[in-house]
Amino acid sequence: MPLANRKATRCLLISTGDPAGIGPEICFKALRELGPVPGFKLIPVGDLETLSRAAALAGFPFALSAIASPGDFRDRGSSGEILHVGLQEAIEPGDVSAPAGGNAYRILEACSGLCLSGEAAGLVTCPINKESLERAGHGGLGHTEILSRLAGVAPAETVFSLRALKIFFLTRHLPLAEAVSKVKKQNILEALVRMDRVLPSLGVERPRLGVPGLNPHCGEGGLFGREEIEEIVPAVAEARKRKIRVSGPIGADSIFHQGLQGEFDSILALYHDQGHIAAKTCDFFGAVTLSLGLPYLRTSVDHGTGFDIAWRGKANPASLIRAVELVVEILEKGRGR
Amino acid sequence: MPLANRKATRCLLISTGDPAGIGPEICFKALRELGPVPGFKLIPVGDLETLSRAAALAGFPFALSAIASPGDFRDRGSSGEILHVGLQEAIEPGDVSAPAGGNAYRILEACSGLCLSGEAAGLVTCPINKESLERAGHGGLGHTEILSRLAGVAPAETVFSLRALKIFFLTRHLPLAEAVSKVKKQNILEALVRMDRVLPSLGVERPRLGVPGLNPHCGEGGLFGREEIEEIVPAVAEARKRKIRVSGPIGADSIFHQGLQGEFDSILALYHDQGHIAAKTCDFFGAVTLSLGLPYLRTSVDHGTGFDIAWRGKANPASLIRAVELVVEILEKGRGR
Repeated sequence: MPLANRKATRCLLISTGDPAGIGPEICFKALRELGPVPGFKLIPVGDLETLSRAAALAGFPFALSAIASPGDFRDRGSSGEILHVGLQEAIEPGDVSAPAGGNAYRILEACSGLCLSGEAAGLVTCPINKESLERAGHGGLGHTEILSRLAGVAPAETVFSLRALKIFFLTRHLPLAEAVSKVKKQNILEALVRMDRVLPSLGVERPRLGVPGLNPHCGEGGLFGREEIEEIVPAVAEARKRKIRVSGPIGADSIFHQGLQGEFDSILALYHDQGHIAAKTCDFFGAVTLSLGLPYLRTSVDHGTGFDIAWRGKANPASLIRAVELVVEILEKGRGR
Repeated sequence: MPLANRKATRCLLISTGDPAGIGPEICFKALRELGPVPGFKLIPVGDLETLSRAAALAGFPFALSAIASPGDFRDRGSSGEILHVGLQEAIEPGDVSAPAGGNAYRILEACSGLCLSGEAAGLVTCPINKESLERAGHGGLGHTEILSRLAGVAPAETVFSLRALKIFFLTRHLPLAEAVSKVKKQNILEALVRMDRVLPSLGVERPRLGVPGLNPHCGEGGLFGREEIEEIVPAVAEARKRKIRVSGPIGADSIFHQGLQGEFDSILALYHDQGHIAAKTCDFFGAVTLSLGLPYLRTSVDHGTGFDIAWRGKANPASLIRAVELVVEILEKGRGR
């Protein structure tokens, strides 16, 4: 391949997550299904011996070998080079343990460092286990907290991606009763302004936004709740004054269908489950999460470590495949931040 | 056909709903797609002239003729006989009007009478328009209220049917904040007892029930809400003591997927949109509603009159087809009540 093209090739890291979980297996199933991705190098990060066993389990056709940095990666998409982050003690598949948690954490440290230095263009993460992390001395942390902290930025915002639709959240990890109390004009307006500003960097210029109702049938004219009249309608009106292309409120049982049909580029879910029920009931394995606010692009599978089915060859790589495709798509179309 | 078989044939009425809406068109599209249904007669109810135009629009292959009672129906599934309930004034497609509302109401009166007398075994309803009903002097009434009142029973309960899954609701038309406050052990327990009792009549013996969480990640051990710990877990435990097969709480973004995969026969949605977002995002045209508590079986399409696309040949009959199939399925498998 000519030198000019080689320079343009970008590295994407795949952190294989908790070694006792399904991460290593879905990583090599995904690489096998994806094949070479033109313009990109996909580099799994994890323990060489663990990943070699996972590759065999997944029917991955190449023997694995460790490289020292992404720059050493040969110019082929999935030919078996990995970045080695060693597992220090033997572990059992499907078990919570400190060595597994420690390995998962050090994998993320390595990935974060390479993304922050610019050696890698983006990161796709396989699941980690909170209990194992806790046993390894990294208690109370999820991916977002770990990566934000390592990057020295405020906790990243999570966006759901389902097919072409991006789902933003007004609130996420709040009790539903409390989430309802946050459905206020100012919060909605700020979220819409942020969506309108951020979406072009994800490849969506002049995005068409949608806001669902909070109550059944959008409150049926005030009969089943007044948040639509008092908060959502005024927020949408104000956003339109600011030239944001936004519609709503639209019944929460219709708007996600409409979005998936192409009527919207992005929808502002008013609470966690509003967006999650829509995305995951519609396509359980196709939903991907995307972090905003990190200095690099990061997507993630939208499922856990699957300890109950780990290392049995049963895990479904669909969400990881979609997560890789999404990074590639955004880096190709958008400004990639 | 021998007399014995003729006696076994049961009549299902299809109320064609508001004549200005999509009901007449989807009725004949559905009949055309369904063809003859062995053991059942499908009888559209509405204005002969209106329905004749709809049949032509839908490419229905038979000329229509009016019959006086279901007993006069010839032994063929969809050969063009209808029950005539005349429209008294000309109307415009897609318009709200008193004559349309009056016709829709009288269609339901006729259907209700025939179901209550036992001449018809069940009713499938096409959409009506509340504003037109109001102009005709039947203000504030939906299908459920009209049919319950005509039958002299308490307002019927609505169940959602999506493929093989039945979705019951703890509450329906309440503001979300108020619905959250109804997530109480006793209410959940009563709903589970009712589901367990009713489902066999819908053809599901020894049903496997599921209860979603209310909060994100089922409250994550109390961190994002305590209703799971204080209300749902105790309700499920008590129901199990009573030999009800029930699991939960399970994350609301997983349980509907699991139910559609066959892990549950029925799920108790804790609020309107929890069940509606799941069903309609997953299969917008395939969701059907089912009324419980009427003296006869009734299903309904799960969409409105579609005035914006009415009488243009564009309406999708999928929900109506599914609503007919569901009545047939229940009458064949269940006790039909």
